[in-house]
Amino acid sequence: MRRALRLAEKGRGWVLPNPMVGAILVKDGERIGEGFHQKYGEDHAEVAALKNMKGSAEGATLYVTLEPCSHTGKTPPCAEAVIKAGIKKVVIAVKDPSEKVNGKGIELLKKAGIEVELGLLEKEARELNKNFFTFHEKKRPFISAKVALSLDGKMAESRDKRTFLTGPLSEKISHGLRHEHQAILVGSGTILADDPQLNVRAIEGRNPLRIILKGDRELPKDAAIFRDENFLVLENKNVEEILKELHEKGITSVLVEGGKEVLESFFSAEVIDEFHFFYAPKILGQKSLGLSFNENDLSFSQISVRKSGRDVYLRLKAEWDSGKA
Amino acid sequence: MRRALRLAEKGRGWVLPNPMVGAILVKDGERIGEGFHQKYGEDHAEVAALKNMKGSAEGATLYVTLEPCSHTGKTPPCAEAVIKAGIKKVVIAVKDPSEKVNGKGIELLKKAGIEVELGLLEKEARELNKNFFTFHEKKRPFISAKVALSLDGKMAESRDKRTFLTGPLSEKISHGLRHEHQAILVGSGTILADDPQLNVRAIEGRNPLRIILKGDRELPKDAAIFRDENFLVLENKNVEEILKELHEKGITSVLVEGGKEVLESFFSAEVIDEFHFFYAPKILGQKSLGLSFNENDLSFSQISVRKSGRDVYLRLKAEWDSGKA
Repeated sequence: MRRALRLAEKGRGWVLPNPMVGAILVKDGERIGEGFHQKYGEDHAEVAALKNMKGSAEGATLYVTLEPCSHTGKTPPCAEAVIKAGIKKVVIAVKDPSEKVNGKGIELLKKAGIEVELGLLEKEARELNKNFFTFHEKKRPFISAKVALSLDGKMAESRDKRTFLTGPLSEKISHGLRHEHQAILVGSGTILADDPQLNVRAIEGRNPLRIILKGDRELPKDAAIFRDENFLVLENKNVEEILKELHEKGITSVLVEGGKEVLESFFSAEVIDEFHFFYAPKILGQKSLGLSFNENDLSFSQISVRKSGRDVYLRLKAEWDSGKA
Repeated sequence: MRRALRLAEKGRGWVLPNPMVGAILVKDGERIGEGFHQKYGEDHAEVAALKNMKGSAEGATLYVTLEPCSHTGKTPPCAEAVIKAGIKKVVIAVKDPSEKVNGKGIELLKKAGIEVELGLLEKEARELNKNFFTFHEKKRPFISAKVALSLDGKMAESRDKRTFLTGPLSEKISHGLRHEHQAILVGSGTILADDPQLNVRAIEGRNPLRIILKGDRELPKDAAIFRDENFLVLENKNVEEILKELHEKGITSVLVEGGKEVLESFFSAEVIDEFHFFYAPKILGQKSLGLSFNENDLSFSQISVRKSGRDVYLRLKAEWDSGKA
């Protein structure tokens, strides 16, 4: 199953909004096939493993990181393919939390006389697709926040003025984060100040949906983000309304990139699941724009730190005492 | 010479206010002796190497990381010991910048017919004793600043209230920094809020001189720092006056530990040579005490980053555009 999880990981970003899934076929103690969901719209992991298989799956055991699906989406239901292949036993890391599946895949397998084992490396399998589980269990997207600060905790020299803080390696990491999220979200202030493209350039990756929170200020029609159709403008909505709308639209993960007010409002709503802090080796000083987060009972786990060129990159899982996130 | 520099490093902290020095004796291509200055008041490196030597130094070459001294201090002049030992050649990394020596050691050696080579790994040797060079060249102590912040760049929940931000591993690093500096410096607010001991407990080390900047508020007579004689209270002085007084007192290095106003005034004076930032995984929020550093042309070099338990520890060399530091 560990190998299946590692395989699944290879689809990160590309499979969105689907979950990453890996599958391995074992027969007589030998691995006869393996596969993973590579890209949205393409074969699911189970089908990929069956296609890559040497010999016959008759009597084999399938290890799969997520419950096989029971419905026809972009591809036919995997549970049926598994049954047809003559597989004897299926070991599943974790149940599919989506309403469409949620145990129905397992039922299909069992009805067909297949032995099913559930829960092997469940924690790791949930962690792998935390966006997908958050989406179905909390009925809102998984929210990540990216915050770039100077050493003295400042965001920019002044409001609505673009400040280049971090370096090229941090840009690569940031674009990696965009690739990993289905959507990114900024306030209109960011559009007005920076006219950013908000796409993935520094690495090879998927361009996320660009969500712009618009207040009363008009956005220029020739802004860079309007050059293609991959954007969504939300007007005068609070965080709760935003999350509800994004859930309805099937957006499983959002990277909140700023600016200050947008980050602060998501912070106050206590819905940020993961933080990505970048510290640049600069001191912007007292006249610059600081962060004004609310008082909170937030603590952190899964803290990872790395040097990113001349910057520092900190990734932390948020543990809200309120339990909202 | 690289080995001599590594040997010298072993005396870090213990030799203060002396510089760290390492020495190696080579004869017929073989290392016949080595030594370093281990502790203030004890043998200098050259003498230690001569004492540890196998056979005779007659005709040997001495590699030493700093010019041998020419004056009698706690121990007799090293240049004389080198001459007496019959050494033929002395390779010196860097000239001693102190007025007492500053070339006089080299003169003595040359007068005695010893060949002298100067400048091997000079940059590294200067870096090793940057406090000592700063002291003699800039006529002020080398200044390091320690800043502990939350992720949002805040120092404490409120003024004069002790906030525990960083963890036990960061405390060890901090105490290591105290050991490495001849003195540490805090404002009276820190004494009033924390009543700290300001000594070295978390590791084995040397207790630095504790300097307290006193304003108009009285300090309690039973404060922890007054329990021994190793303190210095400076009343109502600005940074320039403080540095002048500390230079006169022969203090070669000072670790500025805070609080907020003290750090800010040293920052404004542009005399901080090195920064030690500790970031704790907490968000103190907008009501807490932030840092108000001046606008500046400060940049950084020699940036090192490490995880320190759950905290992040960043060490940076300050490059002031003004060139004051």
